[in-house]
Amino acid sequence: MHSINHNILNMSQQPLLFTPGPLSTSLSVKQAMLKDMGSRDYEFIRAVKDIRNGLLRLAHVSKEEGYECVIMQGSGTFAVESVISSVIGENDKLLVLANGAYGERIAKMARIHKLNHEVLRFDEDCIVTPEAVENFLKEHTDITHVACIHSETTTGLFNPIAAIGDVVKKYSKVFIVDAMSSFGGVVMDMKAMQVDFLVSSSNKCIEGVPGFAFALCKKTELEKAKGRARSLSLDLYDQWAGLESNGQFRFTPPTLSIMAFRKAMQELEEEGGIEAREHRYKTNKQILDEGMHAMGFKQYLKPEIQGHIISSFLYPEDPRFDFADFYEKLNKRGLVIYPGKLSKANAFRIGNIGQIFPDDIENLLQAIKEILEGDSISV
Amino acid sequence: MHSINHNILNMSQQPLLFTPGPLSTSLSVKQAMLKDMGSRDYEFIRAVKDIRNGLLRLAHVSKEEGYECVIMQGSGTFAVESVISSVIGENDKLLVLANGAYGERIAKMARIHKLNHEVLRFDEDCIVTPEAVENFLKEHTDITHVACIHSETTTGLFNPIAAIGDVVKKYSKVFIVDAMSSFGGVVMDMKAMQVDFLVSSSNKCIEGVPGFAFALCKKTELEKAKGRARSLSLDLYDQWAGLESNGQFRFTPPTLSIMAFRKAMQELEEEGGIEAREHRYKTNKQILDEGMHAMGFKQYLKPEIQGHIISSFLYPEDPRFDFADFYEKLNKRGLVIYPGKLSKANAFRIGNIGQIFPDDIENLLQAIKEILEGDSISV
Repeated sequence: MHSINHNILNMSQQPLLFTPGPLSTSLSVKQAMLKDMGSRDYEFIRAVKDIRNGLLRLAHVSKEEGYECVIMQGSGTFAVESVISSVIGENDKLLVLANGAYGERIAKMARIHKLNHEVLRFDEDCIVTPEAVENFLKEHTDITHVACIHSETTTGLFNPIAAIGDVVKKYSKVFIVDAMSSFGGVVMDMKAMQVDFLVSSSNKCIEGVPGFAFALCKKTELEKAKGRARSLSLDLYDQWAGLESNGQFRFTPPTLSIMAFRKAMQELEEEGGIEAREHRYKTNKQILDEGMHAMGFKQYLKPEIQGHIISSFLYPEDPRFDFADFYEKLNKRGLVIYPGKLSKANAFRIGNIGQIFPDDIENLLQAIKEILEGDSISV
Repeated sequence: MHSINHNILNMSQQPLLFTPGPLSTSLSVKQAMLKDMGSRDYEFIRAVKDIRNGLLRLAHVSKEEGYECVIMQGSGTFAVESVISSVIGENDKLLVLANGAYGERIAKMARIHKLNHEVLRFDEDCIVTPEAVENFLKEHTDITHVACIHSETTTGLFNPIAAIGDVVKKYSKVFIVDAMSSFGGVVMDMKAMQVDFLVSSSNKCIEGVPGFAFALCKKTELEKAKGRARSLSLDLYDQWAGLESNGQFRFTPPTLSIMAFRKAMQELEEEGGIEAREHRYKTNKQILDEGMHAMGFKQYLKPEIQGHIISSFLYPEDPRFDFADFYEKLNKRGLVIYPGKLSKANAFRIGNIGQIFPDDIENLLQAIKEILEGDSISV
């Protein structure tokens, strides 16, 4: 029974991850990984089917309405690259809308796969504006696909996907949205937002563990990807065709991450669905904002474009502030924050997502206060 | 304490997987996934470092001797494709040695990535012979790289890697070996076998859970892959450079699969290393062979080329034998076998690897006997 005692210990030793993922997850989600599972087992195949249908429901669409869910092994980037390198044909042209590292990552994929493409760039602290997209599409009539990030984790801003979708569809382009860090934490109707491909991953707002990602796809567009892929592993169409043929993956799936994810989807439903989860994350953010503001911290973004997934806080101006030291002191208390990724300012990031509740945010704020006071650092 | 009771239940409900992976793993390996882990945590970064060095040690090489370990997210195929699509340059030419589905899969990758390549094919029930390879290399002097499968899971045969390596190096070619299902279950000295790239995955003979794979690489050859990759996610060189720069992954790693793998490597050492594990697997195989033979089952392969990882058994000639029914009846007893993948014969497969011990093989044999007798099927 040694192993059981070990579990009890573990339950009190969980760190709290205030990051963009991998996130804090419930113990019951992790416990769903305690049973061995063959990749051809009926129980596993049922779980995969439940997940694929459930993810479409979370996006307010269904197979009957012409949408499909493709699960891809690897990180979120693997699924984004699967879409980008599978759906843009030889004679197509992709427009990448970029205002941060994740938009730039899509542009990099387009370069590597030698896709016809253009990049429309915005400053990191500005949203992608529908007007700029419209002006670009008016002038560049050869664009066939448009890709945009929803929640730019670089800064934490939300691009106005629905309004951008209006423009993209006014000009009849295919719309690809990387909603990696927001799907499951923001109510989204894929059809209303006019999104053809929406990508997210297992270890974000559905609160599963890492191991795979997924693309929700308009079937008529997915079917055009047949034979277009630039790799075997990341072939979006073949992966879908494999899952459709017998419910199995072409190549070994992360069986236990998938069992954990099914449990996470059940727990999302028990919490009250995405609406309730969005409310919890927003409450986390409000408490965080107020507490950090009270200590004197300044946010990098203007509040009107800041999303509720993750926030960038500027370093205190006090020269005694040392981020590595600050991070380490929080870490020792089991509180894990995230470094910044800005090109123009020194900042750190705090995420509001995962199994994080208002009390956890209060504890984090108290710890930050104590550490700064202990080091006599003024903000 | 509900969750703890749940664990105790789970411990008795584990199925036994007689498959080529995902495999049966120890409960303690799975329990290593019960703690949340940030991808930038020191504990995680240490685990990644331990694993990378430990895997080199298992292949009897080290960083000091000029070898490097690159971990790649996804299934084993992702890591094979990462090597194939990253190391073969524009002016290089790959020879694929194929005698089963996994060799053909590498040939498919070569086609998709439009690599200069040739495929030298052998029958599924024959090994790749060093003589045939030598004759081919003599005639095709433009070949620069040779790829071969060690344990062809299609049938279960072992190709004679060391002897093929002798020929490959006699002609000064780069040698790529897919040792997916055998590494960790067969003593291998990468230097003695003259292998430049050796690929395997987390859910094979090291007995971890699925989620990632790895390539052990001769550093001088790995360095040539800089800028050669045909995709972002599967860029072998960049993945390595990322891990070397700060110990972190470029893109979200399967944190918990990695923690499980570190535990699995510790348990491999406790078992007595690869030598002891190879002995256990061989014992499993011997008991299986004898028991199946006693019931009248015939193996697809000649014994001298059959490996000890997985075996293909021909269907009984009795027309009442129905594989789906047989599989299902074993499955209901918690015993999971594997369908065949042969192009020329009807067979099923039974794996000897993972947390499978002689008693488990005895139980499987007894169950097979009872099911066949119950259905009055003669073998």
